[in-house]
Formats: sequence, C-alpha cells, structure tokens
Amino acid sequence: MSPQRKPQGSVLLTGFAPFGGETGNPSWDAVNSLDGEVVAGHRIVARRLPVAFDDSLRELNNHIDAVRPALVLCVGLAGGRSRLSIERVAINLIDARIADNRGAQPIDLPVIAGGPAAYFTTLPVKAMLAALGEAGIPAEISQTAGTYVCNQVFYGLMHVLSERGGAGVRGGFIHIPYSPAQAAHHAGAASLAIDTVAQGLRVAVDTALATTLDRRIAGGAEH
Amino acid sequence: MSPQRKPQGSVLLTGFAPFGGETGNPSWDAVNSLDGEVVAGHRIVARRLPVAFDDSLRELNNHIDAVRPALVLCVGLAGGRSRLSIERVAINLIDARIADNRGAQPIDLPVIAGGPAAYFTTLPVKAMLAALGEAGIPAEISQTAGTYVCNQVFYGLMHVLSERGGAGVRGGFIHIPYSPAQAAHHAGAASLAIDTVAQGLRVAVDTALATTLDRRIAGGAEH
Amino acid sequence: MSPQRKPQGSVLLTGFAPFGGETGNPSWDAVNSLDGEVVAGHRIVARRLPVAFDDSLRELNNHIDAVRPALVLCVGLAGGRSRLSIERVAINLIDARIADNRGAQPIDLPVIAGGPAAYFTTLPVKAMLAALGEAGIPAEISQTAGTYVCNQVFYGLMHVLSERGGAGVRGGFIHIPYSPAQAAHHAGAASLAIDTVAQGLRVAVDTALATTLDRRIAGGAEH
Amino acid sequence: MSPQRKPQGSVLLTGFAPFGGETGNPSWDAVNSLDGEVVAGHRIVARRLPVAFDDSLRELNNHIDAVRPALVLCVGLAGGRSRLSIERVAINLIDARIADNRGAQPIDLPVIAGGPAAYFTTLPVKAMLAALGEAGIPAEISQTAGTYVCNQVFYGLMHVLSERGGAGVRGGFIHIPYSPAQAAHHAGAASLAIDTVAQGLRVAVDTALATTLDRRIAGGAEH
Repeated sequence: MSPQRKPQGSVLLTGFAPFGGETGNPSWDAVNSLDGEVVAGHRIVARRLPVAFDDSLRELNNHIDAVRPALVLCVGLAGGRSRLSIERVAINLIDARIADNRGAQPIDLPVIAGGPAAYFTTLPVKAMLAALGEAGIPAEISQTAGTYVCNQVFYGLMHVLSERGGAGVRGGFIHIPYSPAQAAHHAGAASLAIDTVAQGLRVAVDTALATTLDRRIAGGAEH
Repeated sequence: MSPQRKPQGSVLLTGFAPFGGETGNPSWDAVNSLDGEVVAGHRIVARRLPVAFDDSLRELNNHIDAVRPALVLCVGLAGGRSRLSIERVAINLIDARIADNRGAQPIDLPVIAGGPAAYFTTLPVKAMLAALGEAGIPAEISQTAGTYVCNQVFYGLMHVLSERGGAGVRGGFIHIPYSPAQAAHHAGAASLAIDTVAQGLRVAVDTALATTLDRRIAGGAEH
Repeated sequence: MSPQRKPQGSVLLTGFAPFGGETGNPSWDAVNSLDGEVVAGHRIVARRLPVAFDDSLRELNNHIDAVRPALVLCVGLAGGRSRLSIERVAINLIDARIADNRGAQPIDLPVIAGGPAAYFTTLPVKAMLAALGEAGIPAEISQTAGTYVCNQVFYGLMHVLSERGGAGVRGGFIHIPYSPAQAAHHAGAASLAIDTVAQGLRVAVDTALATTLDRRIAGGAEH
Repeated sequence: MSPQRKPQGSVLLTGFAPFGGETGNPSWDAVNSLDGEVVAGHRIVARRLPVAFDDSLRELNNHIDAVRPALVLCVGLAGGRSRLSIERVAINLIDARIADNRGAQPIDLPVIAGGPAAYFTTLPVKAMLAALGEAGIPAEISQTAGTYVCNQVFYGLMHVLSERGGAGVRGGFIHIPYSPAQAAHHAGAASLAIDTVAQGLRVAVDTALATTLDRRIAGGAEH
C-alpha cells in the first residue's frame, strides 16, 4: 500500500448503481471512495455499472478498453451476507428472481451463448482471505455469485479477460453486505460499514497485485 | 410413479457412506430404501459410494458401466441445510476443509485435470422444484455443491456422461439435510425425515424421467 | 410409555388453529394424533385453541376445568425454527406484529394486568431435552416464546396453575417447526414431520410425568 | 445530543471485560469511547464490569452508588447477532454453557434467590428502536438476554433499581455484535464497527433521556 510517485499501471474497480428499491449501493460508495488512490504502485480507477442485463457488460468492456488495467475487481451488493465474499467462480447462467432496473427479468439464459459453463477467478483468493483476516476485516470464500447481474458481470469479465488471454490481466469479484444504513431497514440483516469495506478492498487489491502464486490454505465447503 | 410389468430401463441412485464422525448417512438410508422400486417405468438401482477422494469416482463409473442407467442421480448429505437442494452446477475444484474417510485432504485441485471449469446438471431442475413443491416436500435450487467429495462426484458424473454424450444419459445431484436423529446431536441444525427425503427423491426421479424440456420458472438468486 | 388398564389421570395437550394465511397448523395435527393415547399411565386429551387474543385463554381455562389434568402442555407453531423448542419462560407482554384470526393486533399490553413480569415453566426442561436427544428428536431449550398468542397462552396457563398452586399441576409450552408441506411454500424454511413432532411430544410428556427433580445439565445461552 | 454547560446529571454506561478467549470486548471499547461525553444534558460515565458471576453485580451496584446516575444502560457482547439488540426482559435465571472468566459455571440458579421471575426494562424500547432506524443504525428488539453474565447483570440492575423504586432511575441492556476484527476470526459471523455501536448508544441514551412515554409501534415476535 505504499504510494509511489508514478503509478506503474491501473486497477479498474467497479461498483453498481442502486437497485431493488434501495436509494444507494454501498458497492459504489466503497469503490468510489478509493478512486484515484495508489495501491501497490497502481492507480485505482472507479467506475459505476448499471444494474441492467442489457448494458452492464457493454459498459464494463468499454471501461476495460479505456483504462487498460492490470487488474479488474468488480464489487456488488449481496444483501443478507455478513462479510466480504471473495467469489471463486462465475457461471454461464442468468436466472433473475427480480427484474433489473429496466424491467428485464431473464430466466435460465446463458450470459454468453456458447461460452464455457464457468470461469474461475484468476485472483489469489486464499492469499486475499488470509490478508483480510490479518487486517481484521471479516471475509470468506464464496462458491457462488448467484445468477443475477453480479454473476453476469463476473462471468462477462472473466470471459473478456480470457479471450484476451495473452495480456495476463487478472480479474475477480467481491460481494459485500448491506451498509448499516440499509440494514437499518431490513429486519435482521447484517451489515458492514462502508469504510470497512473500502479498507477491505484496498487490502484485496494490494494482495492480488503482490501475489503471483496463491497460498494453499483450506477454504472450501462440504456443501 | 405407476409401476409397469417390465421396466424400460434403470435409474442409478447413489448415496454416500457415513463421514465426519457420523454413524450413518441419510443419503444412503433414503436411497437404499428405494432400491428395486419402479418409478415411471424405470427400476431404481441404489449404490453406496465411499467418502474418499481417491475411489468415489472410480466406483461411480463402475456402477454406471454395470447398470447402464437412463438417468443418474447422486445424493449427498449437506448437514446444516434445511431442504432438498437440487444442485445446478458442478465445478472442477476440490478444496477439502476436513479430511475424507481415508485421511486425504486435497486443497485447490481440479476434479479432472484439464476438464472444463464446470458442468451444469442435465436434469430439469425447475420442473423438479415445482413437482416437489406440489408434493409438499421442502426443496430449493442450489448454485453450489461445495468443494468436497459431493462436488467431486457430481463433477465426475457430469464429465463421464458428457464424454459419452451420444447416449443422452442425464445426471444430477441432490443435497439433503441431516436426519432428525443426526440433528438431535447438532445444536440448532435442521433436519428432514428419511422417508420424506425418499419420497422427494421418488418425485424428483419421476419428474426427471417425464420432463424433456425444463419449465421456465424464476428460481435463481441475487447472490 | 407403557399403557395401563386404567389411566391414573389425564394430560391436557393443546394445539392451535391455523393462522397467518396457512391452511393447517401442525401443532394441532401432532397433538390431535395423540388424543386418547395413554402415556405413563395418563390419558392424553387433545384440544384445539383459537389464534385469538380475546378467546384463547378463556377456552384454555375451560379445558383445564373440564379435563382436570395432572399436566398441561401447550404446543404452538414457530415457523422458521428447526427443532422442538422447549420454552422456559412466559412473559407478561403481548406485542403483535401481525393481526390474530379476528383482526386484533394488541401492542405492548400485559397478558394479565397486574400479573408478575414472567412465569417459568414448571416442567423439567433439561430432562425433557435429554430424553428427546436420546430418542433422536431434534430439540432445544428456548428462552423466549415471543410476544404473540403462543406467549399469551403460555403465560395465562402458568398464571392459572400458579393461582391454583396447591394442586401441583405442572405446565409448559413447546414450539414446533413448520410441517414439510408448509415449508415447501416458505423459501428456505426448516421443517419437522408431524409424526416426528408427535413422537417428540410423547417423549416430552412421558419424561415430564416421570421426572420430579429436573436434571442439572447446562442448556443456556450466552445471549 | 446538545451539550450544555453544566450537565444536569449522569448516565452510567457499562461494558464488559473480554471473555471466551477473546482479547477485547467491543462492548467496553464502544462504551469507553463515550466516557465523559454529554448527551441530552447528562454526562456519560463509562465503567467496565468483569465477566464473573460472583463479582459483576457487586461492582455494578458500587458504580450506581458512586455515580448516582439518572439512567443506567449496560452493554454486552452477543457474538453472532448482527444488530444492536435492545433487550426487553431480564429473567431470574443463570444457566452457563461456558465457564466465566474465573472458572465458575453455575447451572439453573436464580440471579437473586427469591426475586421475581423477571423484570422488564424501564427504557422506552420502541422509541429507541425508531430513533436508531432513523439514524441508520441496524437495531432490533430482543425478548431474551440469554442466561449468562449479561442476563445476570441486566436482572441485577433492574432488581436494584426496582428496590430503590422511588428514585425513578431507569435502566436497560443492549447487546451488540462482534467487532469486525473479532468477526474476522469467527467463520460466518456478522459484525458492527465500534464507532457505529458508539453512535447507536449515543442515540439510545439520548432517546431514553428524552422519552417519558414510549411509542406504541409493533415490535414483537410471533415466537
């Protein structure tokens, strides 16, 4: 996290617009608060994606083209989860339980027709989990990013990075809990303060940039 | 579920041996109770798989070779879940938080080196969910089968069925809760009676055999 | 549970009518299935109470007068819980989040004006918990029966038994999960089969009748 | 929350020492951070209580004697809960699942032999809940403070305030989640930042001091 005079490159960090009737989205609030920061010699560029199946991937791809990042980390809200969830796998499936911000509710469609069934993140999830634990930030590995716009963006990200394979740009996705202000209006829900999330994202980016070979620590689930 | 004089074919139903210190495994108890039953004109053949990374897939493949089923449904215990979990996707990843029955604890290895990142089940999960709901059996769609022996078997099953593609044999995986007797010794855990599970498996197999095109009902998750 | 030729007395077991839009109530289904059985030399008399703040206690008191039981166990549905919940304490408070079956929704009123803040059950909860565990029935001790009709009935029961103190009639309350058929229509909810519940109630009544001094086993909660 | 030149009185705010193997206790960290602040014309006096059945109440009583507060709010950790839990009722029961910091593990004993079964808090819990919601702090009403040292202190507090009835000093208890740093080491657990908790306690104290008649808003539980 040592800032340098001249950043070696960029990190594209994305959050989402509000959705599902909420007035804000802590994924964007946290990401936006890091815009312009230099982490491990890389300048963070924050961009906001729409919660819309038809546009989110096109916009993401435009941002990747414009920013030419060394690393892409997309961040989305997982209302009801209680920790930073480092997503491990994106699946080629959209199945929307609720409509997106433009009224679309696709059911059982692929993200990319003809694409592989899934992509694994290329981020070092175990090293990131360990670093977050050492930093006192509640985190976990997750084996599913759902089947909504978050999964669509995650899958689309890994697909485009995979197609440009040679460039070696790494990518991944982190789900975050409600903000406290949101959780105040969702009975029983957990939350994480936006600056805790931002600090966690800083640690995650720093670790991802610094780690070439992931650590081998058990972090799976029996089911 | 109308038995016929001469079954048209077979359904291979597998459960698992006990593991994790338990003395029984309700996945085997439920599956075994259906052995020999005829469902939608197909005779159910129940087989028990070991909770062992090195052998479970070899044994599964042997059973497929011997039984030549029209459909394969593997069933495993997900202690802590509260419903029949119809699994949607198997990933090419083993990450064992606890050792298997022979002391092996592989971390971050593929199920099949060089295999695709994931396989989707070829069962009609939405039709099965709807039929279970109509039968009064608590069920849900799940987007992760974990990273343990259950996921290994599920992935290996879909891999072998995929390689034999032409034959059109369909396959899938269902996770089940603790039995009441197990849950009695796990503070706070949910359970499902073994005969409720067996009835649910009967409905699931019947629906899978009867359904060629899955129903298009929303059943996904935002995260 | 050895039936005898001539029961020494009666046990009053109550369940509730359906409420909250459900078509059945497993508390009544389970209780009713035990009606007339003889447990530990006592005949079980099953009665159904209305989910109505204005009548439930009057009806309960009438049943106590008519049956003259040696033990009263009231049973109610706790949709969302996953085990038999042996309630420990009834509080002198009604605070209805939803209206009862007659449209009443009292907020922050006492069950009995001028009554004590709470009554503890007089049943041997630890012995019952242990017996249920040995019988393979998932159970737990609960420190709150809520603030709805169940708590009203529990408090009212303990109040009337307390006022008739000399008679030594013991009483308590057990909350039960959804039935599987109900849980099938409540996303994510746990359930317990009605005959598992009935078997649990049989064990609970048998243990309560047989135990004079409760066992001293830790069964509390840090919070 | 308008500070005045000369505080009209004091508020005693207590937190607890670390326990259960933790190195810190966010209840004390949050309470201590408010020490000396003036809220609604009252100076906050923060005191730390031991997690010890034999001493906690004696120390609490000493602090009440020394501080002569207008209001007492005790705060304790409820690891696993996800929100500020405004406790409604303290019961006359100790049932320790784990030993306290001095090795004592009392089972099924009263807090005060011969005391009433329970005391309700005298704080305006509904007004506090509403104010916390408006302030964007996740909160909830709880009907059980458990059966451990927290409940002992809560019951003992209400008992001593009740015995000094004429003075009209009000008291209550709030449970709080793990801090993020603690939750980082408890798989799956929710957390709340210590300064969010502190802000919530400030709102709670302010509301309690300003409210004589509680609001009548539904806030109960069916079970």
